Amino acid sequence: MVFKRGLSKKLVTVGVLSTLVVGGFAGLNQNAEAKSGNKANPEIKNVIFLIGDGMGPSPIAAHRYMNDDPSTKEMELTEFDKYLVGMQTTYPDDPAQNITDSASAATAMASGIKTYNNAIGMDADKNPYETVLERAKEYGKATGLVATSEVTHATPASYGAHDESRKNMDAIANDYFDELINGNHKVDVILGGGSNHFTPEGRKIDDRDLVSEFKNAGYSYVTNKEELMNDDNGQVLGLFATGGLPKMIDRAESIPSLEEMTTTAIDRLNKNEDGFFLMIEGSQIDWAEHDNDVVGTMSEMEDFESAFKAAIDFAKKDGQTLVVTTADHATGGLSLGSNTKAAKSGEYNFHVGPIKAFKETPDYIAAELFAAGENANVEEIMQNHIESDFYGKITDSEIQAIKDAVASKTRNITSIDNAIEAIINDHSVTGWTTGGHTGEDVPVFAFGPQKARFAGLIDNTDQANIIFNLLEENQKPGKGKN
Amino acid sequence: MVFKRGLSKKLVTVGVLSTLVVGGFAGLNQNAEAKSGNKANPEIKNVIFLIGDGMGPSPIAAHRYMNDDPSTKEMELTEFDKYLVGMQTTYPDDPAQNITDSASAATAMASGIKTYNNAIGMDADKNPYETVLERAKEYGKATGLVATSEVTHATPASYGAHDESRKNMDAIANDYFDELINGNHKVDVILGGGSNHFTPEGRKIDDRDLVSEFKNAGYSYVTNKEELMNDDNGQVLGLFATGGLPKMIDRAESIPSLEEMTTTAIDRLNKNEDGFFLMIEGSQIDWAEHDNDVVGTMSEMEDFESAFKAAIDFAKKDGQTLVVTTADHATGGLSLGSNTKAAKSGEYNFHVGPIKAFKETPDYIAAELFAAGENANVEEIMQNHIESDFYGKITDSEIQAIKDAVASKTRNITSIDNAIEAIINDHSVTGWTTGGHTGEDVPVFAFGPQKARFAGLIDNTDQANIIFNLLEENQKPGKGKN
Repeated sequence: MVFKRGLSKKLVTVGVLSTLVVGGFAGLNQNAEAKSGNKANPEIKNVIFLIGDGMGPSPIAAHRYMNDDPSTKEMELTEFDKYLVGMQTTYPDDPAQNITDSASAATAMASGIKTYNNAIGMDADKNPYETVLERAKEYGKATGLVATSEVTHATPASYGAHDESRKNMDAIANDYFDELINGNHKVDVILGGGSNHFTPEGRKIDDRDLVSEFKNAGYSYVTNKEELMNDDNGQVLGLFATGGLPKMIDRAESIPSLEEMTTTAIDRLNKNEDGFFLMIEGSQIDWAEHDNDVVGTMSEMEDFESAFKAAIDFAKKDGQTLVVTTADHATGGLSLGSNTKAAKSGEYNFHVGPIKAFKETPDYIAAELFAAGENANVEEIMQNHIESDFYGKITDSEIQAIKDAVASKTRNITSIDNAIEAIINDHSVTGWTTGGHTGEDVPVFAFGPQKARFAGLIDNTDQANIIFNLLEENQKPGKGKN
Repeated sequence: MVFKRGLSKKLVTVGVLSTLVVGGFAGLNQNAEAKSGNKANPEIKNVIFLIGDGMGPSPIAAHRYMNDDPSTKEMELTEFDKYLVGMQTTYPDDPAQNITDSASAATAMASGIKTYNNAIGMDADKNPYETVLERAKEYGKATGLVATSEVTHATPASYGAHDESRKNMDAIANDYFDELINGNHKVDVILGGGSNHFTPEGRKIDDRDLVSEFKNAGYSYVTNKEELMNDDNGQVLGLFATGGLPKMIDRAESIPSLEEMTTTAIDRLNKNEDGFFLMIEGSQIDWAEHDNDVVGTMSEMEDFESAFKAAIDFAKKDGQTLVVTTADHATGGLSLGSNTKAAKSGEYNFHVGPIKAFKETPDYIAAELFAAGENANVEEIMQNHIESDFYGKITDSEIQAIKDAVASKTRNITSIDNAIEAIINDHSVTGWTTGGHTGEDVPVFAFGPQKARFAGLIDNTDQANIIFNLLEENQKPGKGKN
């Protein structure tokens, strides 16, 4: 693989799986199964890799509690639950930190290397590493990146770009256009937020117009749900916000859901006779957790689950599609159950009622309260956004805390947001320990051919290495580098 | 099965697996495998079931960080990691609480039923349910209960007793002696703490001398490591403390480790030609987490891991032993990474150095400080228990907080303990959200024949139902009720 333009980066190809796995677990899985080798009818034609950013064990359980039908004795399973195959370790290789960020974790899952926090597709010596998306394109597959963050954010970036810092989102957008593989743009379907990094008015490093460049290269460009759904071009750039998309619960009708982006991405990519690789990120589970906002966390879990189900439904019909789903890390120290005022001593509960009662996120409501000024009618605005059953349980002192934040001389959205979140966390008995990431292992779900290779405890680098191997083994003769 | 003495309890036999599993997942596993049926040479002769009380995803990852060799790039795997097969849901069936306690969870794992928090081997209508230990005894197997708590505490109790409340530990001790199966005492090897519930001087409900009754029935009675190791009777009652055992890091030489109790239990039980069922609990991972004490949590993880390894080593040699390990629930909202003073903004770390620096638990040190009186030499006592490298990093204000607790008019061990724990949590960047339990799923590890039946996401009731089925399928002709 050679990069036609750009920074004339040296590509470092990752070695064989056995040299990279932690403790050889995935290696054991490998040995336990016959390798299919190149064949005319590959077992695996398509790979869909879904990442729930920040989707540690707690948000998955919380999502199950949220969707429980109280009229049945059993707690209903989520879509994810049916496909659990194991967990993965996520630690980075960073001289100063031993808990990963999204860039290091996504680089591990995309390229099979441990690297420092902030790195996009490169190691500490700034060597760029080939990604599974790039390999798929090399082998003639169609490719896609779908996210609810900016499409240039750390996770998607690590599949389609190479940069020493996740912060360089303008340069990451360049990589999507400039780095060609066999003369082709490497990402066929790019859907999410972040138009700021593609347009002269939004960019900070130059006044390049990547939207026009993509259009001139044959891509459709769409900016709302209607345009997205009325287009069926195999190559599409869809940017539905200047930054990240609104959270599902706050989203206007004109903005596609993650499920809709997923479905239209699959429809387009599936036209390619040699199959496709598609990475889909539920980006803002993590963002809501950073904010210690359980309403937003549950909103984004629901959005992500619907996208996951769409991928599984396609894979079930197709029969040649591998679906793998995991998280890059956990976030926030979220716990079901906590020491809150509402939790009586010795009471073990996670109450979903207060979470379900919110019609929008605290962020959304806080922005409205802030915009309404220091004399805002707090009760009225709150009542507009909260089911009345729960609103009646909010105490006077809790409302007063919001009023104090609204009327403060140093009033700002964050302090109003925090006052609203405190109510939800207290009544739902939700716990948080941090605004950052945490180090526990994260679940791995898989469906389709060769799913057993992802079973047990694997490392995040194994995700890339197993997929590299599967792409190789399932390569059609005469396609790609072999 | 009929209880010869005791409360003439009605035994309710659990129905077939398919009626009890959540979502039918374990049922899928069942259907996917041929059932072996009764046979002369059973595939599974012995079952060792280990429960890490409170061993959610976080203490497992924290234990891995603790044991990482910093000279290698990879994080070394724990003994558990190699055997991960999935996770389990743990919710109870309780009208007032939706997060489980240890009694409800252990009853689910022992008898296959969802019940209320506090229940020992019975449902909400007080119907006692047969346990897998009782079924194993029915089929002629030797049986054992090993714990670092009182042997009558919720988890072991749920395998060998039936009571409407976990608090009735005297009555639970009675059940171990009184409830006979085919004329035999149902638990052959009983090792742990809790002599108070077996002796007239400790018991509250009567002055029964269960120690003498067990001895008269042919059991050895041992009270320290030397006695335990010098005895090889197939039936033994070993009680090494009036209540729970000291934590591993605080333990005197005379008290056996969980590994030593495990090994001697296996040696005794393995003499039985029809095999054995053994439940081993690492009881105090949970206790340390309730206390938000990461030093104690890591101590008990190490103790439990050594016992787990001993079980695996036996199973590897034996070839007919199934080992399953899981937790009843998570505790404390423990997170690796937190918002602490020591954590710089945006820093993602879990520092094990401050944890490793402690030679005893905060509880142990606090008791010594309390005993030394209000004028205790805090610095000297602290220095005796902490490696000097880390002691030098403790700030004056942190020491002062301990001094304040020691000199307070309302001085008590708990407030001194809390001041010490605050230092460890802050410097190690450890987070906690609660002194209670939390609702995330817990990992499941398995080794040996039919381990695949425990794979994926299962429910805690599946543990019992799968084991009931395996006991049935692997029953020797002419043994037990069939």
